[in-house]
Amino acid sequence: MTVTITAFERSPDRGRGLARDMRVRWALEEVGQPYEVRLVSFSAMKQPAHLSLQPFGQIPTYEDGDLNLFESGAIVLHIAEHHPGLLPDDANARARAIMWMFAALDTMEPTIFDRAMVGILERDEPWYEQRLRSLDERVRKLLGRLSDRLGDADGDLLMVTVLRRLQSSGILDEYPRLAAYVARAEARPAYQRAFAAQLAVFTAAAG
Amino acid sequence: MTVTITAFERSPDRGRGLARDMRVRWALEEVGQPYEVRLVSFSAMKQPAHLSLQPFGQIPTYEDGDLNLFESGAIVLHIAEHHPGLLPDDANARARAIMWMFAALDTMEPTIFDRAMVGILERDEPWYEQRLRSLDERVRKLLGRLSDRLGDADGDLLMVTVLRRLQSSGILDEYPRLAAYVARAEARPAYQRAFAAQLAVFTAAAG
Repeated sequence: MTVTITAFERSPDRGRGLARDMRVRWALEEVGQPYEVRLVSFSAMKQPAHLSLQPFGQIPTYEDGDLNLFESGAIVLHIAEHHPGLLPDDANARARAIMWMFAALDTMEPTIFDRAMVGILERDEPWYEQRLRSLDERVRKLLGRLSDRLGDADGDLLMVTVLRRLQSSGILDEYPRLAAYVARAEARPAYQRAFAAQLAVFTAAAG
Repeated sequence: MTVTITAFERSPDRGRGLARDMRVRWALEEVGQPYEVRLVSFSAMKQPAHLSLQPFGQIPTYEDGDLNLFESGAIVLHIAEHHPGLLPDDANARARAIMWMFAALDTMEPTIFDRAMVGILERDEPWYEQRLRSLDERVRKLLGRLSDRLGDADGDLLMVTVLRRLQSSGILDEYPRLAAYVARAEARPAYQRAFAAQLAVFTAAAG
């Protein structure tokens, strides 16, 4: 039985690999698990068929036999728990790796995602400059702490997908260790296969 | 070896159980695991000793022998994986329970937390009314979807702690199923022991 995931029919990121199917594709590529993709339109995402899989009307979802999952973090953890390669064998090292998954999604992503959304949705608001400055300050504080702790170690797939959302802002380049950490991850063959696959969807829809 | 967690010396929530040590205390009470608490001041949270445990200068942390964890989600998952009572035995049911933990922290909490913070930190900003309206709309959309899906089933400890942050806004009462779901959780003896323990810290510090 092949795993099926869902992804945007036309990703709003225009193929930059920032949609949350990217992290699931990448995890599946890292563990060598083939998968199929069902594309969903923005209107289909709000219809009962999709809502029965994803009650908040988002992507991605994950279907494997009689198991249906949503939440990209839960899906990546599920994949990591059922295939070797993504989590260490040692129990304490495994607990720490899972802790960094939560740090990526719960400490880093909310502020980084907000920062990206303000740049898109609030650009014409009178408070735009002030909100952006305040979020940039919070983002820099998080990145500084992360850079101090991460050092030159390689880390977590989810953290990389969260940090990539900052690339177009230029902020990531102020933290050379973090920029190098993301670059090392992007050079991985599994990452590149996942990136090419999501880009091909966007290119086909645009063409 | 007794587990040690950290909590605010003086919680900014004034003992309402909204700080993130509450979810760890509650999980430990549900599984019957005794624990010790080390209180940290706001200035100690930003010092090297605490930052070595929690690189972002937050609480809670969790110390058990040579394992140190931060991130309340990771700590609760770790407790749930090592003690019976918080996760189902069936593999698919377990994956779905973990999925709802991620839904609480990654889909519900960022917007609900923002909504609470705007009411505290942005009250004097020129955009306050408009930001609050926009966040309230997003919160109601999430609660509506959650209420449709959750039905009358009991759910996840983390989801309850996230929803409780809305109680003072009155919004939760617009969703009777969710309000009842939170009330059922709050009636649990383990919840009440955890709540009393964090309230006692606040009362002692204030007294």
